[in-house]
Formats: sequence, C-alpha cells, structure tokens
Amino acid sequence: MARMTAPGEEMHALVERLYPLCRSITGDGVRATLDIVGEYLPLQVHEVPTGTQVLDWTVPQEWNIRDAYIADASGRRVVDFAASSLHVLGYSVPVARTMPLSELRAHLHTLPDRPKWVPYRTSYYKPEWGFCLAQETLDALPDGEYEVRIDSTLADGHLTYAEHVVPGQVPDEVIVSCHVCHPSLANDNLAGIAVATFLARSLAERNPYYTYRFIYAPGTIGAITWLARNKERVEQVKHGVVLACAGDRGQLTYKRSRRGDAEIDRVLRHVLTASGRPHEIREFTPYGYDERQYCSPGFDLGVGSLTRTPYAGYPEYHTSADNPDFVSPEAMADTLAVCREAFAVLDRNRSYLNLSPYGEPQLGRRGLYDALGGRSDTKEAQLAMLWVLNLSDGEHSLLDVAERSGLPFDTVATAADALRGAGLIKA
Amino acid sequence: MARMTAPGEEMHALVERLYPLCRSITGDGVRATLDIVGEYLPLQVHEVPTGTQVLDWTVPQEWNIRDAYIADASGRRVVDFAASSLHVLGYSVPVARTMPLSELRAHLHTLPDRPKWVPYRTSYYKPEWGFCLAQETLDALPDGEYEVRIDSTLADGHLTYAEHVVPGQVPDEVIVSCHVCHPSLANDNLAGIAVATFLARSLAERNPYYTYRFIYAPGTIGAITWLARNKERVEQVKHGVVLACAGDRGQLTYKRSRRGDAEIDRVLRHVLTASGRPHEIREFTPYGYDERQYCSPGFDLGVGSLTRTPYAGYPEYHTSADNPDFVSPEAMADTLAVCREAFAVLDRNRSYLNLSPYGEPQLGRRGLYDALGGRSDTKEAQLAMLWVLNLSDGEHSLLDVAERSGLPFDTVATAADALRGAGLIKA
Amino acid sequence: MARMTAPGEEMHALVERLYPLCRSITGDGVRATLDIVGEYLPLQVHEVPTGTQVLDWTVPQEWNIRDAYIADASGRRVVDFAASSLHVLGYSVPVARTMPLSELRAHLHTLPDRPKWVPYRTSYYKPEWGFCLAQETLDALPDGEYEVRIDSTLADGHLTYAEHVVPGQVPDEVIVSCHVCHPSLANDNLAGIAVATFLARSLAERNPYYTYRFIYAPGTIGAITWLARNKERVEQVKHGVVLACAGDRGQLTYKRSRRGDAEIDRVLRHVLTASGRPHEIREFTPYGYDERQYCSPGFDLGVGSLTRTPYAGYPEYHTSADNPDFVSPEAMADTLAVCREAFAVLDRNRSYLNLSPYGEPQLGRRGLYDALGGRSDTKEAQLAMLWVLNLSDGEHSLLDVAERSGLPFDTVATAADALRGAGLIKA
Repeated sequence: MARMTAPGEEMHALVERLYPLCRSITGDGVRATLDIVGEYLPLQVHEVPTGTQVLDWTVPQEWNIRDAYIADASGRRVVDFAASSLHVLGYSVPVARTMPLSELRAHLHTLPDRPKWVPYRTSYYKPEWGFCLAQETLDALPDGEYEVRIDSTLADGHLTYAEHVVPGQVPDEVIVSCHVCHPSLANDNLAGIAVATFLARSLAERNPYYTYRFIYAPGTIGAITWLARNKERVEQVKHGVVLACAGDRGQLTYKRSRRGDAEIDRVLRHVLTASGRPHEIREFTPYGYDERQYCSPGFDLGVGSLTRTPYAGYPEYHTSADNPDFVSPEAMADTLAVCREAFAVLDRNRSYLNLSPYGEPQLGRRGLYDALGGRSDTKEAQLAMLWVLNLSDGEHSLLDVAERSGLPFDTVATAADALRGAGLIKA
Repeated sequence: MARMTAPGEEMHALVERLYPLCRSITGDGVRATLDIVGEYLPLQVHEVPTGTQVLDWTVPQEWNIRDAYIADASGRRVVDFAASSLHVLGYSVPVARTMPLSELRAHLHTLPDRPKWVPYRTSYYKPEWGFCLAQETLDALPDGEYEVRIDSTLADGHLTYAEHVVPGQVPDEVIVSCHVCHPSLANDNLAGIAVATFLARSLAERNPYYTYRFIYAPGTIGAITWLARNKERVEQVKHGVVLACAGDRGQLTYKRSRRGDAEIDRVLRHVLTASGRPHEIREFTPYGYDERQYCSPGFDLGVGSLTRTPYAGYPEYHTSADNPDFVSPEAMADTLAVCREAFAVLDRNRSYLNLSPYGEPQLGRRGLYDALGGRSDTKEAQLAMLWVLNLSDGEHSLLDVAERSGLPFDTVATAADALRGAGLIKA
Repeated sequence: MARMTAPGEEMHALVERLYPLCRSITGDGVRATLDIVGEYLPLQVHEVPTGTQVLDWTVPQEWNIRDAYIADASGRRVVDFAASSLHVLGYSVPVARTMPLSELRAHLHTLPDRPKWVPYRTSYYKPEWGFCLAQETLDALPDGEYEVRIDSTLADGHLTYAEHVVPGQVPDEVIVSCHVCHPSLANDNLAGIAVATFLARSLAERNPYYTYRFIYAPGTIGAITWLARNKERVEQVKHGVVLACAGDRGQLTYKRSRRGDAEIDRVLRHVLTASGRPHEIREFTPYGYDERQYCSPGFDLGVGSLTRTPYAGYPEYHTSADNPDFVSPEAMADTLAVCREAFAVLDRNRSYLNLSPYGEPQLGRRGLYDALGGRSDTKEAQLAMLWVLNLSDGEHSLLDVAERSGLPFDTVATAADALRGAGLIKA
C-alpha cells in the first residue's frame, strides 16, 4: 500500500473506514475489522472456541446481529441499528415483541445530562436486551405500543483476535496491545488500532532490536485469552504498551505499569519530558484498559498504557459523540511519533561495561577527543563519552546516563557506539 | 458503671477527681490514683520492692508525704501543701526547721516570668527538699524567720504500676502506656489516664483482633520496670502508643516511633490525614515521655506517642496552670475518637494473597461486579476489589492498598472481606 | 616559617610568588613550583620517566621553554613569553621562522569577545606550536613579515609530582589533591596549591585521626600517574577532596563524589550548611578536575571537589584575567577554614554501640544528667547524650546523629566522648 498522504491522514481514513462496523467481544464485527487492518499489514488471526477455559474465565458464546429497531405504531423506525451500532445494548439477546412504552422503558438507556448523545452499553455476561438512544429521542416518543426487534444470535462460535509480529534481533518481546471490541467509537479505540497499525509498519522498516508483537483483541476477555494461550511466551515479554484513546486533541498521558519503574515507564517519561510536549504521567491503577490484565500480580509485566485523554476522562467517552470528528489526524500522528521515539530509545538502551575503568582512557589518541586543551566549551559528544565511560559499570543503562547527565539520549547512545567501536566498552 | 453522659464529660469528671492527689514515682498517691481508675475497669496492680534492679536502674525508696508548709512568724502558712500538691518539691526529704528567708530561698522554686503560677519540680535521685510557689507569693514574703516543715518519709517500700488487658483474637499485643507519676497536673497526665481508661472500655466492646495491654506506670522508672519485668512479652508487642497531654485544646500531634515507618506510624498518619483534622506528625526524638524507653535501641518497639500539644509545647506545661480548666471534654473525646479509629484500622490491616493472580478473576459471575458494562461511574466498592486483588501479592497490606488507591480504608477492608468470602484471597 | 600575618595574606603571598612561573604537565616550571611549596612544608618529590605506562596513558616527553616571541620587522617583540607564560601554547614544539601575518594567524589564539585578555591554550598530545595573545594586540598588528621563535625542547625526561603526608592515628587515608600544571593562572590553581599547603600545616598541629596525604600533581596525567603507582594504597584512601579555584570571591561550591553519598559528601554538606555560608552543592559530573580520575568507575573513591566558583564558571577562567588580583586573601582563608572544619568533623565521625541499649541508662547517677526534674529547658548536652545513646546501634554515625537531631556536630561528638568515658558506649 503506497503512502500517498501523511500518516495522520492515512490513520484517520482507517478510523473512518472501521467506524460503522458493529464490533463486540466476539462476532463478525471483529472479523471485519481485522480484515481491514489486514490490508495494511499481515495478521495472524486466532479463533478460540466458545467454552474454552481461559484463566479464570470461559470464552462466551459468539454474538452476531443483523438488524435491530424500535418501530412506532406506524411502522416508522424511531431507533434503528442501521443508523448506528451503538443503538443496541451489546450482546443483546434476540427479541421480537410489541409492548407499550411504559414497559419498554426498562430496556432503554439514555444520557439525561447529554440529551443529544447515544450512550454505549453492554451486557456480556447477563442475558439481557436493550436499546441505547438519545434522551431527546426518548422524550419525543409518545406513549403507545412499539414493536421491538433485535435480530441477533448468541450461539457457540469463537472469540477472534489477531497478532502481527515485527521480528527483531533478539527474541525478547515488546507487546503493543489494543482492544478491538468497541463498536462505533472513534477514539476508543479505532484511533488506537490505527496508531498500532502504522507503528507496526514503521517498525518493520528499521530492523528493531526487540521483537515487537502487536495484539488486536477484544478488551478483557481477549487479553485474558491471549495471556492464557501464551503463558510461556510471557517470559519473553520484557516491555509493552497498551494503546487506547490515541486520537483526541488532549495532551498525551502515560500510565505507568504496576511496577512503576519498569524500563518502559522510564523510557516513556524520558521521551515525553525530553520532547517538551505537554503531557501527564500517571501512577498505575488496576482500572482502565488491558494493562489491568498484563499487570495482574501473577504476570506483573512491564506494560504501561499510552493514551491522549485517558479512560473516562472526556464527556464524549462511551457515547456517540466519540465519532471520527472527535479524533484528529494531527493527534494520531503525534501519538505515533511518541511511540516511535520511545521504541527507538528502548531499542538502543543497553548497559555497558567500561573495559578501561581505572582512570579515564586516553580518548585523544583514539581520535575521540579534541587535541587543543584549555577551552571551556567542550562538546556535548565528548561529555557524553565521559559520562558513558564513568557510568558503564554494569549497573547503569544509557537511559540512566542520559537522565543523570541531562544529555539527549541520542547523543549518549551515539557516544556509546563510538566507545564500543574503539573497544573501550562492551555490552 | 452506667454511661449517663458523653464520654468527654465522663473523662473530665475523672480528671477532676484525680487532680488533688499527690502522685509521684512511688507512694500512696499512685495507689489512690489506680484505685479510682480501678472503679472504671479492672486493674492488675503490681508492687515492686525498693532495691529491685530494673535494667540499668534500681527501684528507689518509696516516698510518702502527709503535710508540708512554710509558716511565718505568726504561724500563718504562707505556702501549704494542702492547697496544692505542687507546692512540695517531689521526693523532698523530711525537714522541720526554722530559718531566715535568706537561707530558705535556696530551697524555693518559682517561675519569675509567670509570677502567678507554681512550677512543678522534683528531685528523685538526689536527696533534697524544697517548695514550689508563685513568684508573687515569694515577693510578698517579708524577711524574717520562717518555719519550714515537710512531713514526708523516704523508706523501703514499693514502686506501683498497673495493667489492664483487653484480650484479642491473637496473642500479639498493642500497648497503650500512660504515666501516672505527675501530681496536680491535668493535661499531663490525668487527661492521658482518662483517655486510656475509656479507650480500654470501648475496645472491650468490640472483640479486637489484637490483645490490648494498658500500662499505668510512673514515668521513666515505671516504664523501665515494666520492660525489665516483661522482657519476654516484649516479643509479642507489635504496636503501641504512649498517651500524654491528651486533653488540651491544641491540635493532635503524633510522634513517630524510632523506626519511623512502623505500622502504627502509618496507621496514625493515615487516620489523622483521612479524618481531615488539623494535626501534626513529628519525627521521633529520644526525649518526651515513655516512648523514650520503648524505643530505646535494644527494644526498638513500634511505639509512637499521641498527644495534643506535645511535651513542653505550652506555657502551662509543668505548672499550676495545667489545671482541670486547661483540658476540655471535647478535646479528650477527640483524642479518644482518633485512638478508636486508629485501632480499628490497625485491627483490620492484613496482607492477603490473591489466589487467582493471573489476569483479573471474573467478579461478575460471583455477584461482585455490575453486569451492565460501558458506564464510567464504576462504584468505589468495585474499584476497591480490583485494588485489593491487584496488590494482594503478600507484600502489600490493606493500608498500602488504601494509601495507593486513595480509597477509604474501610471501603478497602470491606472489599477484602467480600473477596475473602468468595475465596479469591486468603490471609 | 613564622606566622607573621594572617593565613589569608600568607597564602596570597604564595600565589604571587608562584604566579610568574611557566608550569605545564612536565618540566622545570613544575619543579620550581614544588621547590617553593617545599619551603612551607617538606615534600616527597617523584620523577617518573617519559614513556612509563600509567593506566591507559603513557608519560609524555618533558617540555621546557626558555624564550618565545613574535617580533615585527623592526625586531620589536609584539608578543613576548617573558611578559606572561600564557603567551605560548602549552607544549609548543620549537619554531624559528619568519612568515607573513596571514600565515601566522593559524597559530594565534585570541578571545574575540574579551579583546584585552590572553587565553590559555595547550596541545599536549598533538605536536603543534602557537601563541596566545589579546585580540587587541592582534588587531593592531600590521600585515607583513614576522619573526616567530619558540625556544622550547620536547625530550625524554620526567613527569614530576610531589606528596606530603600528615601522619594520623590510623593508616586510613584522606587525600587532598591539587593540580600544579597550569601556568600563570592564579585561581586555577595557585590558590588551590596555597590552601592545600596551609591546610597541611594546620593539620599537623592537631594529631589527626586519619592520615592526610597531599598530592601536588599535574592535571589528568599526574593524577593518573599517582593512581597507577599507588594501586594498592588506594584501598586505604577512604575520603578525599580535590582543591581547585579556591580563591575567587564567589561562594563555595562542593561537587559530590561519584558515589553521591560518600561520607566526605555528607561531611561537606553538613559543614557548609551548618556554617550558614552561602554555598552550592553539585552532583558529580565526570568533567572538571582530577575527581574525574579518582572517581573513575574502577576506583570510585569517595573524593569530591571543593572550589569557590567552579570549573569554567567565571569569564576570567583560563585567561590572563585570572591573575593574583582575581583571588583574595579572605576567600582563600574562608576555603581553608571550611576544609579545617570539614576534616575536624570527618576525624571525629564514628559509629558507636550503646552498651546499655535496653531502656535509657541512668545518666544521673553517673553525673551526666541534672538532678532537678520537671524543667523544660533541658540542656543541649543532655539531649545530645540521649540522641547518641538512642542511635548508637552500630548503624548510625555521629554525623547521622547530628543531622537527625539538628544538634551541632561538636555537641554530639562531645556527648559521645562523655558517654564513652562513662563506659556507656564503645566504638
């Protein structure tokens, strides 16, 4: 696929394309989503049968829906799934009845405070049916009989998730995980899917050090399923990021892993701080997206979460107002850029051992140091070499060196390359 | 004893009743004090003979006093022990002489800066006699001969202290220690005695987890005697509080144990902070009350000190102005309430182990989680369960969970109860 | 040598005497410098032959210079080494040529921003010749032919450094190191040499606990040479200070050792803070003076650096403006005083063990505590004893006690002496 436009525009186009699909934690909406992503990069799609035990959970029946509406006495559809996948309570059991509005109300979900917006609601594990609609729409409905119909099926089937792997120089893995279960919500999480997809493509171009595994899975049950099926692989997962809410116009927010000082936490803090971007660093909480699962105490992975405005932090969250206009090409491009910068640091962050640790080695005779002495404007590159030499005791990484010296990571890593080239340090 | 009035009033009545008695580190004043406390709760009274070696100290001779005065040439008592037990230098040896004022002055103690107040002075370990009086009184004395008489005895006898134990579910102990050696001083420490007494009574009503031991002992030598006689029990003392200056109108002050981060230190900080009360947390110093002994380096117990205005922090300290008007029912009730809150937290503070640590367990199917998804106003109780599950790795207590989550301790502890009930965590 | 004047004046006189000499990393200028210092205190002078391998370096050829100038067509010396040793690029190879100004320019070093000042430049390890002059001088030179002559020799010889040892009660050493390689620069480092010299003399008067070793060596190569020749002694070096820029009128700056919390770091911070002097504490950087070598990761000694305005921190740095007027007797006396205070603390800083750790020992019967009780103005000396007793658990030094108690170190150390005298603590 040729790059005709800037990545921000391309990612926004992907969001718009995915937006109408009715995704849930299982079903054809997820498959259609993965088919489209698969046009951008090859995916390995997994189908896990209903009833499979995954950790403490069981893969549920598969849900599919063809049509749903509430029609008034005249047959006019006053609420119509065809207009928005949000109109149906996720995982609604089928229904085909006529009932008075008074009885129907118990199945209707609105946002009284935001009368024009349709909420997003689900009932995955309790058999239920319902509709979500604008409070205005509800207020305009006269009393009377309504036909309610949800043409859905709940049946044994599969849970679907996909992976894409960018092979690295070492088998140690970085996971990038995004949830694919939400229906027509742009920021949550089509923007995350789009950023993950373009991130995967750009990583492939640079022969990364780590192996990068992208996981597209339904929230909670999908991450749990992946973890259940990859218990051995988890040993290799050294770092990770959960990507969500990646496209709104708010500042970037990084939520630390449960460990709080995992390398990924330090890398993101460094990159966000060094970049000068306004941003926020939050402590871990066991709530939010699938970092909840990766950071459960049994796994305790070094996986943080990168969002723009975080979970439940904006009024449009989980409503019809989270539409493609709510996310911007610039914001997605910015999220993508930070991910790329962070992984560039992560990929180069090593601990070295100074092979000449007694006194400073004579850099000048190796061509690494200016011959003329006495000047006070020593170059950053030379300072960086002195810092790397001084801290290369096996206990400090290049990121430590960058943070302690205040020098840019790239300058430090380049200095390390020069010193390694001169045989003065080794990994 | 029926509770006719609020605890604050009852405690103040106890202070007033104890106030006139002439307490010291030994003698009948201590016994009379313990007799009165014994009307409120059963006490085990210990009598330790003079000469007993206790750690680096020796139990001194017992001091008792019947009368003491300075009388002028007309026989009028210008300073009279009957008016206030403060008038005699504590542990004064007997004297019966007539001498000119010029000679007497060397035995008189006043507070020149507070001419109306009588100071509190002692000479426990150096044989001495003396009177304490107001500077005003001294200034009004004409030169001339005065009869001085102190009808005291210093003789082999006993040091007296008492204990009251509220049995708990485990033998591990919490000690609450208050000094009973000061004469007519209300805040220091009759208020502490009163709060300890009512605290003991209220603990008995709730079947506490820990065994609570209340120690009523003279300062320094009493705590040292208790420690000397309980060297093995000390192993079981897990937490403790020294109660003093518990009734003045100042804000609460908690002084940390020597350890600085003992569980009692964290509990008091949490309770004081969470309560919104103005308060101060101080670092440990090896000066003040009997925390000096409990926190000596050989014992190093997790014992802090709770006061209102602390040691030597108010002008009335160790003077006749520390009278029953100086302490208020409300302040004592407030000190009592904080002790009760703190011990309620301490009693419930456990570390649990998540029995389903890989991913989140499915709370919904256990009835612990709302079935309807998508809402952003997740209830505190559910958040608390996620926090407890996430941090129940054997290394975090419920207090850790409360502090890290920002949730009330009670909500966290209740969540832990629910999870334990569902078999998801174990102690 | 009798002390006729205040040390500040004496040190300034030493600076003025040393100022005209042309020092470099080798050669007779260093020897003449050490000869003069040797009039103040006996020095052990070491001569290390050219070609000796020292750590990663090799002792270079010895450089000596007799004369150097640039003369115009009329024979007038427009730049003359005799006027200032700064005029010649350090380690210039000999030259005797006539060349047009246009060709000569490549060998001329000026400070365009400071047109009246002559810069200090060297080329130790790349064969080169050159002159340093004021930009004003250069601007005034007409085009034309100039005679350039540098009557220097670069030949096998020696690197010269010296030591002076003040013997202590224990063989553990404190090193004080100052560089002696800079030509006519007063603050950098004649003031450091002067302070070190007077410090050594004053230490000898007080029978110090540690053995103090003063190292006068050329920068970088000299410290490296000392380290190479003293690899076994380094085990005994427990603390150290590099002295430089010790005489300008700026505030004192202490740069921590690489360890950051070495005892010398804590002592200097304590002394500077307690003294109330304005000062700055800086983190270690692997740049500056010979702390770079002592703190290289293989040695990682507890050696910090004390300066007034630090390395490259003033415009006069490495220029002719760093002349004897730039340093003041008062500033040097102040630097000396802080060194003396710091070493007084270091020498008395011990960790003790409380031999009576269960409860407080009875200080009163040992005459260490006031007999009269009840007063709230307990003396500092008594508080200090309680603090020393409480923290003498083998894990706290007297400096810890001073910092935690807020008491002056001297009060704490005196209390420890009293307690040790009473057999209550042992080292």
